[in-house]
Amino acid sequence: MNNESNNVSRLRIIPLGGLEQIGMNITAFEYGDSIIVVDCGLAFPEGDMLGVDLVIPDVTYLKENIDRVKGFVITHGHEDHIGALPYILKDIQVPVYATKLTMGIIEKKLSEKDDLLKKTKRKVIKFGQSVNLGEFRVEFIKTNHSIVDAAALAIFSPAGVVVHTGDFKVDYTPVYGDAIDLERFASLGKKGVLALMCDSTNAERPGFTPSEKTLRHTFDTIFNENKNTRIIIATFASNVDRVQQIINAAYKYGRKVAVEGRSMVSIIDIASELNRISIPDDTLVSIDEIKNYPPEKTVLITTGSQGESMAALSRMANGTHRKISVGAGDTVIFSSSPIPGNEKAVTKIINELLCKGAEVIFQDAHVSGHACQEEIKLIYSLVQPKFAIPVHGEYKHLIAQAKLAEELGIEKENIFILRSGDILELNEDGAQKAGKAPAGGLYVDGIGMGELDSPVLRDRQRLAEDGIIVASIVVDEYSGSLLSGPVIHTRGVVYVKESEALLEEITSTLTEAVTAAYDKGITDWGKIRNIMKDTLNEFFWKNYKRRPMILPIIMDV
Amino acid sequence: MNNESNNVSRLRIIPLGGLEQIGMNITAFEYGDSIIVVDCGLAFPEGDMLGVDLVIPDVTYLKENIDRVKGFVITHGHEDHIGALPYILKDIQVPVYATKLTMGIIEKKLSEKDDLLKKTKRKVIKFGQSVNLGEFRVEFIKTNHSIVDAAALAIFSPAGVVVHTGDFKVDYTPVYGDAIDLERFASLGKKGVLALMCDSTNAERPGFTPSEKTLRHTFDTIFNENKNTRIIIATFASNVDRVQQIINAAYKYGRKVAVEGRSMVSIIDIASELNRISIPDDTLVSIDEIKNYPPEKTVLITTGSQGESMAALSRMANGTHRKISVGAGDTVIFSSSPIPGNEKAVTKIINELLCKGAEVIFQDAHVSGHACQEEIKLIYSLVQPKFAIPVHGEYKHLIAQAKLAEELGIEKENIFILRSGDILELNEDGAQKAGKAPAGGLYVDGIGMGELDSPVLRDRQRLAEDGIIVASIVVDEYSGSLLSGPVIHTRGVVYVKESEALLEEITSTLTEAVTAAYDKGITDWGKIRNIMKDTLNEFFWKNYKRRPMILPIIMDV
Repeated sequence: MNNESNNVSRLRIIPLGGLEQIGMNITAFEYGDSIIVVDCGLAFPEGDMLGVDLVIPDVTYLKENIDRVKGFVITHGHEDHIGALPYILKDIQVPVYATKLTMGIIEKKLSEKDDLLKKTKRKVIKFGQSVNLGEFRVEFIKTNHSIVDAAALAIFSPAGVVVHTGDFKVDYTPVYGDAIDLERFASLGKKGVLALMCDSTNAERPGFTPSEKTLRHTFDTIFNENKNTRIIIATFASNVDRVQQIINAAYKYGRKVAVEGRSMVSIIDIASELNRISIPDDTLVSIDEIKNYPPEKTVLITTGSQGESMAALSRMANGTHRKISVGAGDTVIFSSSPIPGNEKAVTKIINELLCKGAEVIFQDAHVSGHACQEEIKLIYSLVQPKFAIPVHGEYKHLIAQAKLAEELGIEKENIFILRSGDILELNEDGAQKAGKAPAGGLYVDGIGMGELDSPVLRDRQRLAEDGIIVASIVVDEYSGSLLSGPVIHTRGVVYVKESEALLEEITSTLTEAVTAAYDKGITDWGKIRNIMKDTLNEFFWKNYKRRPMILPIIMDV
Repeated sequence: MNNESNNVSRLRIIPLGGLEQIGMNITAFEYGDSIIVVDCGLAFPEGDMLGVDLVIPDVTYLKENIDRVKGFVITHGHEDHIGALPYILKDIQVPVYATKLTMGIIEKKLSEKDDLLKKTKRKVIKFGQSVNLGEFRVEFIKTNHSIVDAAALAIFSPAGVVVHTGDFKVDYTPVYGDAIDLERFASLGKKGVLALMCDSTNAERPGFTPSEKTLRHTFDTIFNENKNTRIIIATFASNVDRVQQIINAAYKYGRKVAVEGRSMVSIIDIASELNRISIPDDTLVSIDEIKNYPPEKTVLITTGSQGESMAALSRMANGTHRKISVGAGDTVIFSSSPIPGNEKAVTKIINELLCKGAEVIFQDAHVSGHACQEEIKLIYSLVQPKFAIPVHGEYKHLIAQAKLAEELGIEKENIFILRSGDILELNEDGAQKAGKAPAGGLYVDGIGMGELDSPVLRDRQRLAEDGIIVASIVVDEYSGSLLSGPVIHTRGVVYVKESEALLEEITSTLTEAVTAAYDKGITDWGKIRNIMKDTLNEFFWKNYKRRPMILPIIMDV
């Protein structure tokens, strides 16, 4: 787990989040006495993580090797790449390196968390620039993605160069800034690249992802065809280019634009300040001002395109938004596609909007931010890596990229699919998995924080399914004899219609069992508790085929 | 709600399940002293219906008018059209009318439920035949769907004819039996149809759903390209035609077939007995026998194509199936597409199968059982109804069909989208909504049964999110003074790491509050309970931003 097993002539790559917890992107690179960390993302809870707000990576490995950790290098400003920084930087106080907009978003996050902004050393890196971090040198390379200022990284180590694409696509006509720096990928490839870690998200999709700019025509058509209604467009808060194109269309058609949703407002502020978005004068108005204009002269850009129940669009759809009510005369456009798992939530909102009389446009107003198969092949062909380590995506996506890599001539034994904590050791002579580092997810629940799979989550699962029965008795402190009870309370178990009769039946069954035990001279609390548990378990299984949680309580006086 | 408001010269159509609870298809038709019921389906619980097994329709309206109910007419044998019969027939003891396979599946269900099979009058109806039910005559019309023997219904009443398509597609080359009886739809249309109730499931999809038989070529290709592996195919249990085609391919390539999953085995038994499937001799073997054959000479047909966690495929994928283990050398084919909401569960299984080394084929081995836009237009054009009542689907699907109907010349005010319980009154002179009947979903949870939205579900939701705190005290029966406690128990609240210190802190905070109350002379149980609740609520909100459920218990001796 630490220096002892470290082979100094080899580079080690250790994903600390990743495959088992999709979205929690964080990878340690280690050579000799130096460790650098690429990205520091968080994941959102799966359906069975009841009451969990966020999942952040377990960085025990970094803590154990804190004196060797040189810094975080960040590819781009999405939550799954930066979201855990405010939690992790508290323990791992090292510098953060990122491009301009990415750093702007990070700084906003750190400013909301104690004094982390003041405490954390930060450096903005330009494309083409490098930063030296111990044995490593990391160069930031321009790419394209659904957020401005996304970077790939060329990670130079004595064992060779690793190219990490981050999340990317190839966009020859981006809305802001330059196209991906393909020349740099090519020249790195020509000099020799040890390993390529390439985005797999769209590795199952054939073809080439369309340019963000293709949506200019789409929005133009939509605005042209809906001249008599208010237009509401839901999209990802962080897609500054998308917002830019919506604003351009609004300006062209003489509409005012308001922005709704905390994260959307925040990112547009940052992007404006850093000149990553350009908003014509007198176009943006506040959500309070927009009602002063005729609806057909306004556009509302909002969060909630994934059906998030607390986001602005969801509140508009179910009629709980304080300022905006949606209905006939509104055209609502989803400029997004549902992230896997969100399909049903999105559909629910569409149905609610239609129910209220709004028109809903769901198709064709979105392009992906990730490379499809032909783009992935392009990068492999330019970089010509010895080893391929597909990253970013579910297992099926990594497998799909592995197949592409094989088709492109990478030998099968040189392709590695890494799980969280896998240690891959590699240099020009070869690569192999060499043990495991502690890794995985920690959940954040309110202010408390704990490890996944804890008994608390199992308890919640059981409470959710079948509820809880609390059975209380009072016994004499000295004799141990029964003084009062049993009294039964239930939560989430009994249906109102039948509850009274049922409660009586449970109580009398339990009273009988407890009294019988005391008659036999049993006073040991452990034994009495077990009798209470067994009696109630049997009662509910026999009569209802259910296993509510049973909590026997003994009090003494 | 009953005869009083009934207009005898009008037909009344009342969906008792439907839009608010997708899948629970059950519609009452009422004229004069006669009520008939089309279908009697169940719904599966949504994610927020914690611990609920099934949702069945509220048939209060039928109970209140039981002397007028003439029978159930059933369109086809899917759960969302027949699944609630075993629950509803107990109270609504009327005859059931259905085609042959549909009745076979119903009889199997009833035979598992007390003596319902013996008690229920049943009649198998052939296509083209009618059944007289009071003021109604119902004719069964041949259609095509993803289950054999699906029927549309022509419902003749003194107020006019209603055509109800059931779930359908137009398949000119079905695997079993005849193509849809388009001639009959046409001749009904020629004579004049009052209303069309048409399947909307695929109303958003342009074009024409491919024939089930197009999969013959698909399976042939798959079997031809995977000659050296075992083949495992997951599909819907009830899709007898699909199973037939898989068996045909297996036979052609000299493979033995085993069937796994209780519902699949059951339906194939029924279909064989009723000659709806034809299995060559020596092709079918049991799941225990199949290991006696070389893997590449076997095919396994299994349930679980929707990612259902208890189904056979899921157990194979996660390694908990008792008889089949999946790995390298297996080709797993999903002959299905995920029902909305199941996408993530299906993806999870695909990832697990790939992880185990299996090949997974997910695309192109499925066709829908529902009509796309061109088929819907065909039916409208043949039937030429005065009124259109889109059925089967979410709100967005009904709206999509309503738009098609408008394009085909049905006047907008003659198109009705009905919600659960809506009463539509209609005859040749017009149609309008006329009040509400009781309707909606009742949930089935274990053996217990209760109404949706009950406090039990809300309790479960809260327990699932934040857990429960039980705080107990013992007081003197006469003086009311505090004798023991408070003692705190928690479930699903506290993380193990911090639990001891936290428990102490909670206990001392609560003790202080309760003692202070008693010092002030407060002994009223209600007031003491409120003080306990408020103290704990405040503690958890202030320290953890959480609101666990609080259960204060006072016992007296």
